[in-house]
Amino acid sequence: MGSSSPSDSSFPVTASNINPKVLECEYAVRGEIVTLAQKLQESLTANPGSHPFDEILYCNIGNPQSLGQKPITFFREVLALSDHPAILDRVETQGLFSTDSIERARTILNQIPGRATGAYSHSQGIKGLRDAIAAGIEARDGFPADPNDIFLTDGASPAVHTMMQLLIRSENDGILCPIPQYPLYSASIALHGGTLVPYYLDEASGWGLELSEVKKQLEDAKSKGISVRALVVINPGNPTGQVLSEENQREIVKFCKQEGLVLLADEVYQENVYVPEKKFHSFKKVSRSLGYGESDITLVSFQSVSKGYHGECGKRGGYMEVTGFSAEVREQVYKLASVNLCSNVSGQILSSLVMSPPKVGDESYELYNAEKEAILSSLTRRAKALEDALNKLEGVSCNKAEGAMYLFPRIRLPEKAIKAAEAVNKAPDAFYCTRLLNATGIVVVPGSGFGQVPGTWHFRCTILPQEDKIPAIVSRLTEFHEKFIDEFRD
Amino acid sequence: MGSSSPSDSSFPVTASNINPKVLECEYAVRGEIVTLAQKLQESLTANPGSHPFDEILYCNIGNPQSLGQKPITFFREVLALSDHPAILDRVETQGLFSTDSIERARTILNQIPGRATGAYSHSQGIKGLRDAIAAGIEARDGFPADPNDIFLTDGASPAVHTMMQLLIRSENDGILCPIPQYPLYSASIALHGGTLVPYYLDEASGWGLELSEVKKQLEDAKSKGISVRALVVINPGNPTGQVLSEENQREIVKFCKQEGLVLLADEVYQENVYVPEKKFHSFKKVSRSLGYGESDITLVSFQSVSKGYHGECGKRGGYMEVTGFSAEVREQVYKLASVNLCSNVSGQILSSLVMSPPKVGDESYELYNAEKEAILSSLTRRAKALEDALNKLEGVSCNKAEGAMYLFPRIRLPEKAIKAAEAVNKAPDAFYCTRLLNATGIVVVPGSGFGQVPGTWHFRCTILPQEDKIPAIVSRLTEFHEKFIDEFRD
Repeated sequence: MGSSSPSDSSFPVTASNINPKVLECEYAVRGEIVTLAQKLQESLTANPGSHPFDEILYCNIGNPQSLGQKPITFFREVLALSDHPAILDRVETQGLFSTDSIERARTILNQIPGRATGAYSHSQGIKGLRDAIAAGIEARDGFPADPNDIFLTDGASPAVHTMMQLLIRSENDGILCPIPQYPLYSASIALHGGTLVPYYLDEASGWGLELSEVKKQLEDAKSKGISVRALVVINPGNPTGQVLSEENQREIVKFCKQEGLVLLADEVYQENVYVPEKKFHSFKKVSRSLGYGESDITLVSFQSVSKGYHGECGKRGGYMEVTGFSAEVREQVYKLASVNLCSNVSGQILSSLVMSPPKVGDESYELYNAEKEAILSSLTRRAKALEDALNKLEGVSCNKAEGAMYLFPRIRLPEKAIKAAEAVNKAPDAFYCTRLLNATGIVVVPGSGFGQVPGTWHFRCTILPQEDKIPAIVSRLTEFHEKFIDEFRD
Repeated sequence: MGSSSPSDSSFPVTASNINPKVLECEYAVRGEIVTLAQKLQESLTANPGSHPFDEILYCNIGNPQSLGQKPITFFREVLALSDHPAILDRVETQGLFSTDSIERARTILNQIPGRATGAYSHSQGIKGLRDAIAAGIEARDGFPADPNDIFLTDGASPAVHTMMQLLIRSENDGILCPIPQYPLYSASIALHGGTLVPYYLDEASGWGLELSEVKKQLEDAKSKGISVRALVVINPGNPTGQVLSEENQREIVKFCKQEGLVLLADEVYQENVYVPEKKFHSFKKVSRSLGYGESDITLVSFQSVSKGYHGECGKRGGYMEVTGFSAEVREQVYKLASVNLCSNVSGQILSSLVMSPPKVGDESYELYNAEKEAILSSLTRRAKALEDALNKLEGVSCNKAEGAMYLFPRIRLPEKAIKAAEAVNKAPDAFYCTRLLNATGIVVVPGSGFGQVPGTWHFRCTILPQEDKIPAIVSRLTEFHEKFIDEFRD
């Protein structure tokens, strides 16, 4: 048995004899920079004052509650009552919980066979919860949704893996992916042994999705013998923050129909739109508006409880709505869901709540709405403040964060900085981000982790730090950037 | 694009152009019989009295709470308080929850950065919870456990997939698996494109694991050019219910060391042992007792909150303890965990509770212990009652359920029955199980879904129906079996 390094040689399993697809897969959002941040955090805890900053500011990952965002009270009340139904009939409970959360918990429990939240559910998820989600989709889109099309999942990531597992047969199968992309896609395509077929978003037009570019890349892939199976669209965009126009979406839908591509629509940021001139439209709504039915387009929409105004990442809830597959293929999707038995029931419940929140007149409505609006309006202000600050930096340009939770500024780095990065065997943007972290405690992810036009450099920064921290982040970032540019000015 | 059937032809994705590994994978526990059971359930609901039974009795899957088992109060109290920490300081809470569940929730929340149960955690799981689990393992085994070896997962199934993904490079990589096996293993090996190398458990010696058989199969696989990477052991056994002797475990550990095999130890039934003469020993304890350290044996142990006396299947919690991998390979395991961000935090909390339940002197201890003992002693009685009943049936022999949640009786079917099965294109055991379901509403899984010595027929039956239902199950089963045998008697 071979071994790639001496430390590895005494073990039967070594880096040189594991699945090479695992080695190939990359996931920058939790990569090298985050490992460094964790080390700095430990060092700060052990020796306060040992660094030029007193806390690590995690802007690397869309994890709102880790940065102080509070959960929506109604959601947590229903979850707590579903966990411990024994207290539903106690007098004290009425003092602690809202009337409608108690009612909702009862309704949900009655939808679960034997009221057993501790039982494996149907592999697609509890039927009553899927009914609520389908009703929520109908209300959102104005088109029917079928609860049998809903597969509840442990967040959107396992759903994406399921689709890649289904579609990819070999490295000759390609998946069209936006570049920059959320690295779950490249990781999942690598793990399942397929080929990522990139299409570049146009930074100059606010990260526009140009169909001519997609067509060109599809033809190019075909000419190389790649069978392209699906097109991934992330809308609102991650890491790029753009919101597609309805017209653009229509073009994409028509193109997928024409080319027989499965449209994999990552719509987990559907609640996160920050500009009045843009609105989220689901790809299902757009395709149904075009008059396309089940047999015209194969479309999978991914949704998650981790994003939106709720940001319940730790709950690992989500669903995919699977439309336009034949009954035979649907059975195979069901089988894949069955092999893991079911997704976690708390996450299932939360997915249904997110798609059917309190309504006007419910006791919880006012608080729910106030919490929701406070979070969304604050995110809008934070997006604008960070965008403005980034655009003031020398050599930095940043498109508007129309939606999602990120900014993806372009940084024009001096030649000297690029050489210095090469000297330490780092991508220039990774070099910049490492320096930024060491100097300020701010954690951002280098653009190279998401893909970018060769020769351009970016980083992804979330808009999630609490508002009172934004001024400090802006001033630390500005000070660092000026010093960095001065140090390496050509 | 080809199509395997007319119904499929109008869709771009068809059964004939999806990943063939998905088609190959089988998962009997939720297969044809369960689909039929669901149809019967619907028909019973729509037309009560339309069948010779008034309820479907699900004995197909280890899902205790779906059959009326109540969750452990302490666990659910802590979960509810962790979901909704806002009530921790309220006076009413003291009336509703035990002192130690309130304390435990506080401790856990303090271990979570920002007390944010809605945040993604560390990819391996929350550090404080891993500390508690490591302490629980140490207390169980009397050997040290390292929290950095613990990876918290959404149940044991995703953990098994992770290991298969890591180890399997192509169909030339083999995994030694017991036959009969839990079909997660065959499904996961098929999905990851490897080869299942079977070793047969010896039914005559109470489903004994004979090392000579394992050796023979390993040599046989090697001679076919298969590189065998790992040995799966399920202890207590699923579907077979045996508990391995410590001596047998020692042999297995030595064998894995000698052959450089990764030992994949499915230990999810560690709390489920029903006979006084047997005791659960973890493979880690056995290997450390032999003096084997990290560099002697690569061992992964799987644990789940779904089994034991808690049976919290819907919570999707579990962990794997990963030992004896080099740092480099460990990093790859970490990367795979990172791509899905983290497991659900409620499941993480529950995993820690299961490994560190209330102690003597805690307010909850008496209730916790009474609930636990009631469940385990009832399971012991149920295992015995069903085993005795099965052994009374003509042509049926059933080994003792020493542990786990299943019986796997052998049924000797008359030639005529086998012919009748062939005539309808069914395996004889599937034919028997379908007949049983249609006649009695009892759902069991045909042995062919788990693997069995060719020419022998079995089914898997859980011991989980509530005790008051056992007499009805026994009498319905007995009546059906007699009629069946009479109908087909040669």
